[in-house]
Amino acid sequence: MSYTAPNFSALGLDSTPDCAFKPAPKAATLPDGFTSTTNFPTYVKINGVWRLPNKPRMDSHLVYDPNTDKLEIKEFRCIQEGDLVAIADHEDGSDGVFVWTDGFQQDDKGEEEAFSFMSSEVSREKPVDYDAILRAFKNNREGYIVWVIGPALVHARGREAMEWLIRHGYAHCVLAGNAVAVHDIEAALYGSTLGMKADGTGIAAGHACHMRAINEVKKAGSIQDLVESGTIKSGIMRALVQKGVPFVLAGSIRDDGPLPDTITDALAAQSAMREHTNKATMVVMVATALHSIAVGNMLSTYHQAEDGTIREVTTICVDQTEFVVSKLKDRGTHQAFGVVTNAQDFMRLIQLELASMED
Amino acid sequence: MSYTAPNFSALGLDSTPDCAFKPAPKAATLPDGFTSTTNFPTYVKINGVWRLPNKPRMDSHLVYDPNTDKLEIKEFRCIQEGDLVAIADHEDGSDGVFVWTDGFQQDDKGEEEAFSFMSSEVSREKPVDYDAILRAFKNNREGYIVWVIGPALVHARGREAMEWLIRHGYAHCVLAGNAVAVHDIEAALYGSTLGMKADGTGIAAGHACHMRAINEVKKAGSIQDLVESGTIKSGIMRALVQKGVPFVLAGSIRDDGPLPDTITDALAAQSAMREHTNKATMVVMVATALHSIAVGNMLSTYHQAEDGTIREVTTICVDQTEFVVSKLKDRGTHQAFGVVTNAQDFMRLIQLELASMED
Amino acid sequence: MSYTAPNFSALGLDSTPDCAFKPAPKAATLPDGFTSTTNFPTYVKINGVWRLPNKPRMDSHLVYDPNTDKLEIKEFRCIQEGDLVAIADHEDGSDGVFVWTDGFQQDDKGEEEAFSFMSSEVSREKPVDYDAILRAFKNNREGYIVWVIGPALVHARGREAMEWLIRHGYAHCVLAGNAVAVHDIEAALYGSTLGMKADGTGIAAGHACHMRAINEVKKAGSIQDLVESGTIKSGIMRALVQKGVPFVLAGSIRDDGPLPDTITDALAAQSAMREHTNKATMVVMVATALHSIAVGNMLSTYHQAEDGTIREVTTICVDQTEFVVSKLKDRGTHQAFGVVTNAQDFMRLIQLELASMED
Amino acid sequence: MSYTAPNFSALGLDSTPDCAFKPAPKAATLPDGFTSTTNFPTYVKINGVWRLPNKPRMDSHLVYDPNTDKLEIKEFRCIQEGDLVAIADHEDGSDGVFVWTDGFQQDDKGEEEAFSFMSSEVSREKPVDYDAILRAFKNNREGYIVWVIGPALVHARGREAMEWLIRHGYAHCVLAGNAVAVHDIEAALYGSTLGMKADGTGIAAGHACHMRAINEVKKAGSIQDLVESGTIKSGIMRALVQKGVPFVLAGSIRDDGPLPDTITDALAAQSAMREHTNKATMVVMVATALHSIAVGNMLSTYHQAEDGTIREVTTICVDQTEFVVSKLKDRGTHQAFGVVTNAQDFMRLIQLELASMED
Repeated sequence: MSYTAPNFSALGLDSTPDCAFKPAPKAATLPDGFTSTTNFPTYVKINGVWRLPNKPRMDSHLVYDPNTDKLEIKEFRCIQEGDLVAIADHEDGSDGVFVWTDGFQQDDKGEEEAFSFMSSEVSREKPVDYDAILRAFKNNREGYIVWVIGPALVHARGREAMEWLIRHGYAHCVLAGNAVAVHDIEAALYGSTLGMKADGTGIAAGHACHMRAINEVKKAGSIQDLVESGTIKSGIMRALVQKGVPFVLAGSIRDDGPLPDTITDALAAQSAMREHTNKATMVVMVATALHSIAVGNMLSTYHQAEDGTIREVTTICVDQTEFVVSKLKDRGTHQAFGVVTNAQDFMRLIQLELASMED
Repeated sequence: MSYTAPNFSALGLDSTPDCAFKPAPKAATLPDGFTSTTNFPTYVKINGVWRLPNKPRMDSHLVYDPNTDKLEIKEFRCIQEGDLVAIADHEDGSDGVFVWTDGFQQDDKGEEEAFSFMSSEVSREKPVDYDAILRAFKNNREGYIVWVIGPALVHARGREAMEWLIRHGYAHCVLAGNAVAVHDIEAALYGSTLGMKADGTGIAAGHACHMRAINEVKKAGSIQDLVESGTIKSGIMRALVQKGVPFVLAGSIRDDGPLPDTITDALAAQSAMREHTNKATMVVMVATALHSIAVGNMLSTYHQAEDGTIREVTTICVDQTEFVVSKLKDRGTHQAFGVVTNAQDFMRLIQLELASMED
Repeated sequence: MSYTAPNFSALGLDSTPDCAFKPAPKAATLPDGFTSTTNFPTYVKINGVWRLPNKPRMDSHLVYDPNTDKLEIKEFRCIQEGDLVAIADHEDGSDGVFVWTDGFQQDDKGEEEAFSFMSSEVSREKPVDYDAILRAFKNNREGYIVWVIGPALVHARGREAMEWLIRHGYAHCVLAGNAVAVHDIEAALYGSTLGMKADGTGIAAGHACHMRAINEVKKAGSIQDLVESGTIKSGIMRALVQKGVPFVLAGSIRDDGPLPDTITDALAAQSAMREHTNKATMVVMVATALHSIAVGNMLSTYHQAEDGTIREVTTICVDQTEFVVSKLKDRGTHQAFGVVTNAQDFMRLIQLELASMED
Repeated sequence: MSYTAPNFSALGLDSTPDCAFKPAPKAATLPDGFTSTTNFPTYVKINGVWRLPNKPRMDSHLVYDPNTDKLEIKEFRCIQEGDLVAIADHEDGSDGVFVWTDGFQQDDKGEEEAFSFMSSEVSREKPVDYDAILRAFKNNREGYIVWVIGPALVHARGREAMEWLIRHGYAHCVLAGNAVAVHDIEAALYGSTLGMKADGTGIAAGHACHMRAINEVKKAGSIQDLVESGTIKSGIMRALVQKGVPFVLAGSIRDDGPLPDTITDALAAQSAMREHTNKATMVVMVATALHSIAVGNMLSTYHQAEDGTIREVTTICVDQTEFVVSKLKDRGTHQAFGVVTNAQDFMRLIQLELASMED
């Protein structure tokens, strides 16, 4: 959808004052009255000009450097002592900060009705517009599609589909946790995940398989080393390594091992993830509440190309229940389009439908 | 899976007494001490012989007529005054009633382990063995596949897939409620269900569309009349009528209208449904708690062919959450295989995979 | 909340035409162009006067008799041949039908924000305002509180709390299905529901208990007869009979038995239920999708006292998941306030809190 | 429940060989053939004696030091180069490792039945035995009750109840994430969580409140400093500091800020948490999948007192859906007792019932 920039004159914002800035009293500490960003385009008035800062995301802070004339969005933890931080109580422009929510409005929303059925935003009972999803995949193949995936995708055998999508150019980055890689490699080595075979039955002594998978990676040195050794013959991690698609494995307190590739510090992991969300033109979140909300927090609703062109970031959230999608929206990622279904079936359908379009 | 009949001698049941019978004191009232059936093969000892009654189902009663030597399973509401009803406190054969649960045991369950992961029976995180499901559809195409479907299948646009399955011989009967037919016909007439279009957006004055669909059927006389008039060009009901596949629409207190085809009396509807469940070799329940549990109540775990051959009834329950499957199992339909997914995606996947096998 | 009637002049509706009416071509069949009602106050212009019909509910039809000057809302199934039915394409008054959605608007909704968290309507993560719920119970003790309950309330031991509420004047009517009464009586007779004891463990041969409970009622003649015989010493049904609180047991295809008190015809059950929903000043729906949606369909958003005073009907829907509440809203019962919790805990909390207020 | 140690002679394990050990090839890397622990009592045969190692947990490894004769359970990440690690393929004692699952068997499980209802392990429809839960709280007041809580408990206003439980001796430790503390302090400072007031409505500019709460802690230095400054007047964190009850805040990629008290490295957080799980006699997990599964991974099924006495660790998992409890069990925490309810209502009920028992 094309972007409509705000008409500041028409909005009566020509004569509003510049935004005020105050220095941060110490590192990772803000001056009183600081403003927090949203994921919408946010304009800041400096020297009479409304400017759009780089690297937008929510729950962060506007920092201006008069020496370099640079306007940045910095996360709380990145604030340095003395950083000049925007001070504002309102987001309507009256304090020099303006949040613009109407940039991607649809022209035609149909006749508003006083009484209607099926007005809930996300429901398993509403049809999913797969045509629109498939078009988005096609359109973003030349963009930057970020996948955010949880281990249920691997357990439930969406891994063949994920591998297919990686090999066919529909994934430019994968953000996941330790378990996704562990179970994918367990499946490649032993044919099981958490000791459970593809038909849902168990294998003998299966509870140790994931620890053995971790140990094989440790022995090899890294996931890339294990793949290059030729030991594993299938899977998501192998496809990523072979296709040169970057991945970030963010650690959590739930992890076993962890793998040598897993970033165990949450802040370091956030920084690594944000390198990719900043480039995203499309984000597909499947079967993970933790990683979806983490990515939602750092994701803007729009992507600005190097030539300044702004486009909406297509955000799809696939989960078994409405709850994760609602939770994501309740934490500010209102642009997420919810697909309430099983991860395995979503992946397989996308693969089959995209494959039939390739022919 | 082939059936293994009980070896009564080996089980020490040769010398147990005959089952006792007492007359029902009045219609739809049982003698004290009556036994209630299960959905497993249940043998009754009469004149020293262990016999298997016809038309098995749970929560019903064993009635024997010494004049005709007929042994029947009768539902509570069908008991006549004076019917001779089996009296038993135990199901282990000691009172002449024997419930046989090991007839379809798998030979090989793998090594039992003290500690294992993923031991839950139904979980969105377990892989669904679609190969086994597709084989079951193939195997039962010559059998009797009963579909039990809810309106979410229609809202979420599984109707094209359902129509395809009917036209390709994968449905021998459809059991549903008033709403399935209403919304299917609403979709055929107006392109909406509950006023919601296929892409999930609403149509103007949409809340009246389902009432108008009902009115069109009333004006035509019946669903068959409406189909034969050529007014509707798509959908489940049209496919059923055109292919001569029987359907039962059971009424409920939630119904609008209702349609002239809907059976509003619950007991009459149960009788109509049981005509089909008695023939079922496979049952597929999709997106309906009410109808799934109703069918589960009247469904045996096995089907006995006219030549006496016994085979297990493949029972698949598809729902968005584990809850409906667990609820079904908790009400005795333990044989149900749960597929935890979105109805639309299940239907579309089955269609695509079966279609690719047809080629 | 007090009602604000529409100001037709201010709304520019003084000069709009009268509503048109056409005769129904046959029984339970409507003239083309008919309008369907909503559950909001709906005004109809007849002879230049905006009138509010009696017995409002959604998905029904406006019928006017010029001989008696009576304006009724009739359900589809109740339409007689020749009934004059309102014809309208719009609900904004331009066709003589006006749906008024702003009668119970809150004065103060706080500052609208461009970006906010927790904007979902129903979520387990939002605080439940129990003080408001308790006030509603207190305020409606002199009104007409209709309970709509499912069997999970009985299984999970909310029955002691429900009995307490009945005995303390917080229930003027109970709408339920066959199973609620069966399991309540099973609990009174055998200490189990579906063969499961209060601590969650099973009892021997438990699967027959509910059939034996049904048989005891059959032997007695009716629930009232069984209660008056003194056989049962506890429970919801006994409290209802002893306090003279009316109940309706609506049948469904899921029923065993059924009990002699159960109305097996869906249309007859709807009529019996609507006798009570027409009087409701407050409705509490607990743990039943089928009955909640059925009641939602026949429930107006407002109650009109004999003196013409209009007040909003407080509607509370308690369920384990957001899904049932969303489903209810998606079928038009938008006024429902959702409480996402366990039925047992809701009932026990309400009992404890109301009891402490009684002291 | 008292513990029954295995009778090795009766189990035929007197003549089995000692367990074999091999050195770890490098740090955090295991020798081939290593065994992984479970959370059951696990005996290891060394020099002919069956020994029980300290600090039991699952997914870890048995390390023996012949110099000190110490037998430890070490996590993967803690393995040092040269550590002697147990090698075993079986857990039945034949390789010198014996997993004992029958230590806490109940004497009486009732008559097993061939057919029964309500056999699912966790269901919202089963009664919760609150008497047993209340007894467990009473019994463990002199033990070590570990709470594992998620932010929904704070949003939904379970914080007053949690504060009451801390002040009345029913919490010996709290394990949580950054968000629990942030929202608890947001509530204390601004009366909101995520900008949402206790009655579920929003406050103006609410989305910045949690960032301001973080900033206040940063300005004070730590949570303890903020509490001791007297700035906040209510809440969980204040009660913990004032009562000297320890807490661990484990970081995640979802965190804003984070607070200075939050441990951002996942491995450091695991170590801090395990200090407390090792002491636990009772664990109560409320409304958090991430932390519940993390704690489940490091939690033994039993606690061994200094005098060697072994008792089962009472483990209660409270969540809105069966899914989290099933997921926890599927990851090996099979001893968890599931309570499927709303966190707010669970907390309030426990408070009211325990308070009434105090009188």
